[in-house]
Amino acid sequence: MNRIVTIGGGTGSFTLLSGIKTIPDFNISAIVAMTDDGGSTGVLRDELGVLPPGDVRQCLVALAADDRIMRDLMSYRFDSGTLSGHSLGNIFLAALEKVTGNFVDGIEFASKILKINGKVIPVTCAPSVLSIELTNKKLIVGEDKINRTSFENTHVSKIIVDSPINPDAACAIAQADYIFIGPGNHYCSILPNMAVTGFSDAVARSRAKIIYIANLTNKRGHTTHYSLSNYVDDIERGLGRAVDTILVNTTEPTAEQLEHYIQQEGESAKVPNDMFEDTRVLGADLLSTKVHPAGPHDTCGSLRALIRHDSEKLAQVLSRLCHKEARHIDINLNRGILLSAGD
Amino acid sequence: MNRIVTIGGGTGSFTLLSGIKTIPDFNISAIVAMTDDGGSTGVLRDELGVLPPGDVRQCLVALAADDRIMRDLMSYRFDSGTLSGHSLGNIFLAALEKVTGNFVDGIEFASKILKINGKVIPVTCAPSVLSIELTNKKLIVGEDKINRTSFENTHVSKIIVDSPINPDAACAIAQADYIFIGPGNHYCSILPNMAVTGFSDAVARSRAKIIYIANLTNKRGHTTHYSLSNYVDDIERGLGRAVDTILVNTTEPTAEQLEHYIQQEGESAKVPNDMFEDTRVLGADLLSTKVHPAGPHDTCGSLRALIRHDSEKLAQVLSRLCHKEARHIDINLNRGILLSAGD
Repeated sequence: MNRIVTIGGGTGSFTLLSGIKTIPDFNISAIVAMTDDGGSTGVLRDELGVLPPGDVRQCLVALAADDRIMRDLMSYRFDSGTLSGHSLGNIFLAALEKVTGNFVDGIEFASKILKINGKVIPVTCAPSVLSIELTNKKLIVGEDKINRTSFENTHVSKIIVDSPINPDAACAIAQADYIFIGPGNHYCSILPNMAVTGFSDAVARSRAKIIYIANLTNKRGHTTHYSLSNYVDDIERGLGRAVDTILVNTTEPTAEQLEHYIQQEGESAKVPNDMFEDTRVLGADLLSTKVHPAGPHDTCGSLRALIRHDSEKLAQVLSRLCHKEARHIDINLNRGILLSAGD
Repeated sequence: MNRIVTIGGGTGSFTLLSGIKTIPDFNISAIVAMTDDGGSTGVLRDELGVLPPGDVRQCLVALAADDRIMRDLMSYRFDSGTLSGHSLGNIFLAALEKVTGNFVDGIEFASKILKINGKVIPVTCAPSVLSIELTNKKLIVGEDKINRTSFENTHVSKIIVDSPINPDAACAIAQADYIFIGPGNHYCSILPNMAVTGFSDAVARSRAKIIYIANLTNKRGHTTHYSLSNYVDDIERGLGRAVDTILVNTTEPTAEQLEHYIQQEGESAKVPNDMFEDTRVLGADLLSTKVHPAGPHDTCGSLRALIRHDSEKLAQVLSRLCHKEARHIDINLNRGILLSAGD
């Protein structure tokens, strides 16, 4: 059994977990950022004083048994009246936190109902606020505000989450065989995990191989002109060590996919690979060809979903990387030789 | 196995079902009125166009397996923010109706999650409005409005629910061995079941013995000066036939119970028994001695809960009435001889 830890939150983790939960010998712990303060989650945090349920809910649904009604129910979003915008799953987790007395017991109870394959672990159990300090000394406080702020003309100098790591998360990291980082919102989902106090200490105690699953696209205002190495530098600074493998997609998006995407994120949407000389980079076809229009009941709810990873392709490549034949793959990977999911 | 049908809704059904679900050979179908339009239920009906979840939720929780967290969760009521006043269970059932496409499928799914012992059956599946016509020709429309209106200086001439009976409810009635009616809000929970089109036809096709569990107290403005026979007359008019047994409590409430109650319902709170000569009347100690203060998380949420039936006593007496030894009890019952739950 391979002990797998994923680091993320939101749509990226949903895609990754939906795929890898089918790998028989993956024992999955999904570590989830806890700084979301926007949308339905933000309202529930403000009004009820609960921890943010949204990202945890997405990971629970991704790992849930194949019960269509239960999964649809947890992702169901009310579209009228005072409940408008709230997801049933978020409300459910908020009430569970109240009834059980703490968020972790609530997640455990929900995990049983959803019969999930794996564990969902909040990176911290303290009420947390994400702040970003820019090189121009400006401080932006709150994930939702950060998400809506453009800082492309300056740089991020510090990511701050003043909360201690959840001991369950620290143990999962320390005991992991593999840690999968990403894909996901770089400054609002991935790096906020690494900013909690004690995160890099846990990583330092771990003998896990770390695989970074690079994003397919840049986010306008946040990572507008980033190349692959910019992402990797940030990740390695957050971890306090180097990653072992960098998994990049090698398939070109279709014209239709790009068109939709550029409307939202601008011309520099695609992440240029400037690490061809780095033997840790592995290229594979990881692109989804499915069309998922955004809608009120869509788990992703964004046009960006149109260029995204394919859960199954991602799972197959990761499965091969983590199994014995991986040694053979490792040789092929030198100099970034391409690998197809079905090789 | 005795096929038991209960007719009611709300707190009275909760008390009854919580007790009788423990009787091993009772196969329970709880038929529930569908005209509630107040509180959390009313808001969900108005804003989402769903059927009223509140009474169904209470019956589901009453029949649920002994999982404290799940039961607490379904009864949990939010006490702040935009969700304030809503019960999680109501929101859950509303979302289930949306996801499954209809209320009955939603109840079936919730029944599985809650592992209920029995079935909960809406008396009708059509969106329903309760209206009451008074002898002064005034028409009051809407259950919540009726609940808050005093009509003690006139009489109810007609109870109107212009909806067809749910075929599942008609079958359960037709196949029942015993039908338990009440306890509960006379004009807003019990009689609205009997007003749906086809209800008395289903009763006419049934060979069930009908047991009426008389209310302990009158409701000010609705049944202020009622005696037992006034209730029984209304019930028999609703059924289109006579009841077989009338179960009345014979234990005096304590001074403390009465004091709290009279504050809310007035001096004529207790229901006088004017049917001593009727051999169908059975007296027994059915009074709860527990104190249940009202609170935001209280399933009952009312001071009237202070004078109420004891679930276990009620279940024991009903169990004896429905089993073979009942023949022996029947003899004792002539002339209203008292029966204690433990006899």
